[in-house]
Amino acid sequence: MKILEERIRQEGLILSDTVLKVDSFLNHQVDTQLVLQIGEEFGRIFGHQPVTKVLTVEASGIQFAMATGIALGVPFVYAKKKKAVTQSEEVYSAPVHSFTRHEDYQISISQKYLGPDDKVLIVDDFLATGAALVGLADIVNASGAELLGVGCVIEKSFQEGRSLLEERGIAVHSLARISSMSPGEIHFINHHTEETMKESAGC
Amino acid sequence: MKILEERIRQEGLILSDTVLKVDSFLNHQVDTQLVLQIGEEFGRIFGHQPVTKVLTVEASGIQFAMATGIALGVPFVYAKKKKAVTQSEEVYSAPVHSFTRHEDYQISISQKYLGPDDKVLIVDDFLATGAALVGLADIVNASGAELLGVGCVIEKSFQEGRSLLEERGIAVHSLARISSMSPGEIHFINHHTEETMKESAGC
Repeated sequence: MKILEERIRQEGLILSDTVLKVDSFLNHQVDTQLVLQIGEEFGRIFGHQPVTKVLTVEASGIQFAMATGIALGVPFVYAKKKKAVTQSEEVYSAPVHSFTRHEDYQISISQKYLGPDDKVLIVDDFLATGAALVGLADIVNASGAELLGVGCVIEKSFQEGRSLLEERGIAVHSLARISSMSPGEIHFINHHTEETMKESAGC
Repeated sequence: MKILEERIRQEGLILSDTVLKVDSFLNHQVDTQLVLQIGEEFGRIFGHQPVTKVLTVEASGIQFAMATGIALGVPFVYAKKKKAVTQSEEVYSAPVHSFTRHEDYQISISQKYLGPDDKVLIVDDFLATGAALVGLADIVNASGAELLGVGCVIEKSFQEGRSLLEERGIAVHSLARISSMSPGEIHFINHHTEETMKESAGC
């Protein structure tokens, strides 16, 4: 997604070979118009499938799930990271390790809001280690719902997240795929490169 | 907001005299169409003012800030509840006590995304004790930005939140104001009642 790559080049702060901050327009201060366009792009990519529900994890996935839900005309559900006092009913849950925050947590979704009749699209802001997304995929499996795909806004393609998801047979689409980065420099996998890589990998 | 009150009557789960769950349509599973309408309503109420930024706190305020930002054509910023590894710059912060989760936490916003040029509308899902909203108002003050008002989706008018905000001279607008509730029963302050109350209070 060209406009997204441009914004990342302009405003993204690359703190190291693995840490990219996009909090001026995506996940602290949020450019609502850009996020709406991101939702429309996910709608374009996944809209031919009968999605009944968009799924994400709090907090930074919420705006993208909202925009994608708007584009597809379906509700979204966000997994919670901690069991609240008011969340007393039965939940599906999965353990997740956060490499950013250096901590383990549980993500959970009420069993009332996910079940065998649902056809689910998972969206999130980043695909890096894939930890949260694998957890969400496990929750979808546990609920009996069908997982139609995973949509990520930014993918760090040099980390293992995509492989972990694809090994499980999950279709992954990311709107900006970073092949490598270091302070002052960032490279995206463009469509041509992507096709070349797929051909050389025999896909 | 009639349609919101109806959904609360139909789907809200009243667990006690103070605990209302709306997680089938507002803050776990989210009805994107209803939330868009909520954003438009905040746009209608506050749109005559020169709002430059919508402010909320993660996680359950995000979808409402997104919808309000869409309606007003401005970005939103969400306060974070914990300092992440990637949040290293200077922040404005305030302590908040959560009565729902029985814990204290810090909310913080990067100083890069709030300053003297900003005219801020705060939105959140619930106004009850007002703890998080007072924290956000303090952050706006510390930044030098102007606070134009607070918009809440659901107000528990029998708790002290509104008073705490109004004592600070803040204009508060809530879309559904609950005067009292108990399992199986809920009462809203309607416009007529509200006017009567204001008259008898001499406002």
